[in-house]
Amino acid sequence: MAFPNNGSAQAIDTRHAVDRTRFLTRFREISAIGATVRGGVDRQALSAGDIETHRTVIGWFSDRDYSVRIDQVGNLFITRPGTTAHAAAVAVGSHLDSQPTGGCFDGALGVVAGAEVLARLDDLGIETPMPIQLIVWMNEEGSRFPPVTMGSSFAAGVLDQATILNTRDSDGHDFRAELGTFVKALGVAPENVPLPETYLELHIEQGPVLEAGGQSIGLVDGVQGLRQFEVRVQGRTAHAGTTPKAHRRDAFVQARGLMEEFDNGFDAFDDNLRFTIGVCQVRPGAPNTVPEDVRFTIDLRHPDEGTLDAAEALIRRQVGNSGPGRVALKRMLAQAPIIFDRACRDAIERGARFCGVAAIPMLSGATHDAAAIAHRTACGMIFVPSRDGISHHPDEYTGEADMVAGADVLLQAVLLLGSGTEAPLASKG
Amino acid sequence: MAFPNNGSAQAIDTRHAVDRTRFLTRFREISAIGATVRGGVDRQALSAGDIETHRTVIGWFSDRDYSVRIDQVGNLFITRPGTTAHAAAVAVGSHLDSQPTGGCFDGALGVVAGAEVLARLDDLGIETPMPIQLIVWMNEEGSRFPPVTMGSSFAAGVLDQATILNTRDSDGHDFRAELGTFVKALGVAPENVPLPETYLELHIEQGPVLEAGGQSIGLVDGVQGLRQFEVRVQGRTAHAGTTPKAHRRDAFVQARGLMEEFDNGFDAFDDNLRFTIGVCQVRPGAPNTVPEDVRFTIDLRHPDEGTLDAAEALIRRQVGNSGPGRVALKRMLAQAPIIFDRACRDAIERGARFCGVAAIPMLSGATHDAAAIAHRTACGMIFVPSRDGISHHPDEYTGEADMVAGADVLLQAVLLLGSGTEAPLASKG
Repeated sequence: MAFPNNGSAQAIDTRHAVDRTRFLTRFREISAIGATVRGGVDRQALSAGDIETHRTVIGWFSDRDYSVRIDQVGNLFITRPGTTAHAAAVAVGSHLDSQPTGGCFDGALGVVAGAEVLARLDDLGIETPMPIQLIVWMNEEGSRFPPVTMGSSFAAGVLDQATILNTRDSDGHDFRAELGTFVKALGVAPENVPLPETYLELHIEQGPVLEAGGQSIGLVDGVQGLRQFEVRVQGRTAHAGTTPKAHRRDAFVQARGLMEEFDNGFDAFDDNLRFTIGVCQVRPGAPNTVPEDVRFTIDLRHPDEGTLDAAEALIRRQVGNSGPGRVALKRMLAQAPIIFDRACRDAIERGARFCGVAAIPMLSGATHDAAAIAHRTACGMIFVPSRDGISHHPDEYTGEADMVAGADVLLQAVLLLGSGTEAPLASKG
Repeated sequence: MAFPNNGSAQAIDTRHAVDRTRFLTRFREISAIGATVRGGVDRQALSAGDIETHRTVIGWFSDRDYSVRIDQVGNLFITRPGTTAHAAAVAVGSHLDSQPTGGCFDGALGVVAGAEVLARLDDLGIETPMPIQLIVWMNEEGSRFPPVTMGSSFAAGVLDQATILNTRDSDGHDFRAELGTFVKALGVAPENVPLPETYLELHIEQGPVLEAGGQSIGLVDGVQGLRQFEVRVQGRTAHAGTTPKAHRRDAFVQARGLMEEFDNGFDAFDDNLRFTIGVCQVRPGAPNTVPEDVRFTIDLRHPDEGTLDAAEALIRRQVGNSGPGRVALKRMLAQAPIIFDRACRDAIERGARFCGVAAIPMLSGATHDAAAIAHRTACGMIFVPSRDGISHHPDEYTGEADMVAGADVLLQAVLLLGSGTEAPLASKG
């Protein structure tokens, strides 16, 4: 058995578990593409490595009668036909691009597990009424070509094609040209591809909750709301040796005062509030010069929109009270909280029960392709543990038992959603 | 009258004042070299602008029988002969290089005023027993080729020639090659040049004290002691959305805690303590990533070495108590406080009195070429006001009346030190 089985009521038919060896071998095959010496991967969107992983995944199905399509921005759709004519697809997937200092699991796990679901249905000779589709979303990370969830946001109608094609990376390469290379390498002509009606995504948690609780499977209820701000404090440069404290307008001292006010204010909020200052630039940045210009970011997340409103009000109040330097506050991003589809959630819960593993309800702190399309498609997500909660880093790691457990639950949930039955479909074998 | 005359006891003989028109015209001539659109100058050491200013100053004396020498690192010595054989020189000077975003006054004022002293002695037909020397120190700023006060530190025997010649700027140009261009442009062969016995430097205050007190002339008693440190805090990167506060090891939160402890601790010290955090780098520096690595600098200054010891002890104590991330503290620089020469100080004070202007005793917060050679040569410094205390910035500004007052006092002090008399020497005219 490839997954924890706590001996609960309904034991799984091992014929319906994923092929552990194939699944892990294919995962290692993908992890080797764009591998870095630190043990992670550097596979930013439309890089040579990103293109190679797409070709590899398509190659796994070269002997099948599946449809392989890409849309106008490079989202890849591999579809295993269903038995009912014109039935809407049930999709699984994630992304293959990574951060420049990415780990092997973020995105890739969901794609390889999705591919395994299709392959396992073939192994078992299971026919589903609805087509089962594997989707590889283009450029989820947005590290090379902003923004994040670019491909899924296009599919959801939130980002337009022209904006995406005209995006440039920091070296000046434009998305349009790089996409051309990608299309040529895949040998598939872009076309309109509709969103599936249902979409499930297996992903690493990228946080410490499951590991801390000793759990394998997270049942993701939704995604926290997010607001990002940039704060700029302008003081006055002065010589560090010659300028008494009373004569200074030190932008960094003022900025730190603001940060402390935020820290203190947010202590009164509930534990679900996530408050991060991830960027702080101090200028001119010389040891002997009093800073005149400080920019810092605020990343605020909470499942409840009202709490985010209150947190933003606190920030605006403190910024308004800050002196003597000028303080400017700019809201860069606001994403409302997402609640995932009830039926998807139920299918994951039942799939987990069938696999004999507990599914722990939780919220996603990170955004995902599933969240980007959730207002258009019924979506659900499964999380598996991230060791030490580390992600976007070569040390990102999920144990094989957890990876396989996640893929098993995904398979069961797909069987439930793709067949309309509550128990896994019988195999022909 | 070009300078404030408060009508005190001894009125100046205007024949002994500097030539205001020539002095200010020459100052504007230097300010135009390497001028930036923001109204300052960019004349880093050995840049084309820096070389051109040296050629310009030499050109002012092309019809004189002065010796023009440079030493092995590009310090320039222009000497007006004295009447006593083998008498040690009384020198004046400063530097012509600037910060990349420098103002027009830092350094250049002292050089142009020094040149004016020599020229005025010629105008007046005054012969001095001791030679009067103008020194232009190479690379005081250290912004292109570190460290600061490079040329004067070489002359003082603190920096060796090989180290200096092998220094590279951030673009990979080495000092040796750039000095070769400088030497060729000046057409003067480098040689050993001894330090003068006495050195006076006129400089802008680069702080707000004189302006705030409505004073024109600062009599610099010495230079504060300086210690610089680098602090590095190492935490752990984490996803801003997924990682609860209790699971974070946010290096920036910890670094800010340390900074606050320093702030609070130093509040108990006297007002002369200068404490600045001028550099703070937060990595990896993404809005949605908890920082794992923060480096910041501490610049500490005080006139008393014991107080600096106590301040350093406080820093070491707080660093030792800081957690959970690792904190490393490195002392980058330690300069003991400097007390300038009594005779130089007296000459400046008497010179000011003769000019009918008060000389306000003060300490220099910034380091200077005079401080670099003060353990080898009798040194004194005169400060003139900096508007708003601004320096190393295009807005750096000193009014013409203050510039001229500073040059007048410098001339009087040189006459006193170069002749051994207490009253200015009589002119031949």
